[in-house]
Amino acid sequence: MMSTATASNEALEHSRTDSEPVPSGVFPQAVNWNNPRVAAILETAAECFSRGGFSTTTLADIGRELGLRKSIVHYYFTSKATLVREVQNFAYGRYLEVIRSAVSPTVDDLNPDSNCYDAGFRGLWARLRDEKSVRGLNLELWSEARRNAELAERAESFESEARRLIGEHFIAEKGMSGDEAQALATLTLAVLDGLTVREERDQGTERSSRAYEAFCKLVSK
Amino acid sequence: MMSTATASNEALEHSRTDSEPVPSGVFPQAVNWNNPRVAAILETAAECFSRGGFSTTTLADIGRELGLRKSIVHYYFTSKATLVREVQNFAYGRYLEVIRSAVSPTVDDLNPDSNCYDAGFRGLWARLRDEKSVRGLNLELWSEARRNAELAERAESFESEARRLIGEHFIAEKGMSGDEAQALATLTLAVLDGLTVREERDQGTERSSRAYEAFCKLVSK
Repeated sequence: MMSTATASNEALEHSRTDSEPVPSGVFPQAVNWNNPRVAAILETAAECFSRGGFSTTTLADIGRELGLRKSIVHYYFTSKATLVREVQNFAYGRYLEVIRSAVSPTVDDLNPDSNCYDAGFRGLWARLRDEKSVRGLNLELWSEARRNAELAERAESFESEARRLIGEHFIAEKGMSGDEAQALATLTLAVLDGLTVREERDQGTERSSRAYEAFCKLVSK
Repeated sequence: MMSTATASNEALEHSRTDSEPVPSGVFPQAVNWNNPRVAAILETAAECFSRGGFSTTTLADIGRELGLRKSIVHYYFTSKATLVREVQNFAYGRYLEVIRSAVSPTVDDLNPDSNCYDAGFRGLWARLRDEKSVRGLNLELWSEARRNAELAERAESFESEARRLIGEHFIAEKGMSGDEAQALATLTLAVLDGLTVREERDQGTERSSRAYEAFCKLVSK
């Protein structure tokens, strides 16, 4: 037990390098994300699922990557289904944080000298693009949710909250009607997802960024 | 052999009901799509992969759906990888046809009384939305292409042709520069993909259509 714990702590510290504070989820947490081991399992699971897809990645694979026995992963997540659901919650929590800070009315106020393209709504795509594991995981979740009603329902709740946040931004910034703002918020989320699809293929080209810039120009007209 | 052939012919006729003429692919065809049995296998494979995903759907599953023995499916497609590649080609061929007819300069000329929203560029989303098996298959292909370099490369060739077609439309219709048209073409394809993600969840609501309408309004400003 001791040697496993030591190995897992090393793996844990390794996996937490450069990571941001643990975000809260969209849904109540099934496990306590402030527990560093839980956080490490979630982050590693997100990477493994993103890399290998849900159907072929096992709890044992995730444990191996962290130097943890499968039984320890099982201690926190009783089944793969529970872990998949919690990883979805984790990814959506990060995604909503990015949206929240991008549409926050104080971003530009606080950074009057910041590059306009990187601030607020105009920086939304660049910030999501850089959340690499969330980005890849999203593509896997879209596919998985087509065959898993609970994931689909949770995806819809997440979407509805994201739409509300972006819609309120358009109402406040552009004086749009609620219906107009809702349609434009749906469009914005569609653009972000569509660019995610492209970025997974085109990484390194500036094509997605130019397309998002074109979108911002259209919206600001 | 005779009874299998009869059963398969019935299944074949069943599966061809309501189907459109076989489109050509984006890439050279690995098998002859004008052979009705090949066409039936491709259509059924597209539906099965769309429903169950690539990793868990077998050649035997596809054969069973058509009342064909696995060995007959194997006769036309020597491996699952070959079939997956050809189904991608088939789906992309349909997708390009929809784009081609939507951006064709003659659509509005030929239908002067048609509802503007259903014609040409404004009807692009509605037409893709109705290609149900292509729509679902697309989501599966994005995920699969992340782990299959050949599918990713073919996806990029398809995208490049789609971008060219839509870009030329913007150059001709809006007098845009090549760079502007390319960015807007990438954005259009991202919008279509992002709405596809939503439609798979939201089917039946008009949310995606309203978002596409908002996009067309922005573009036509």
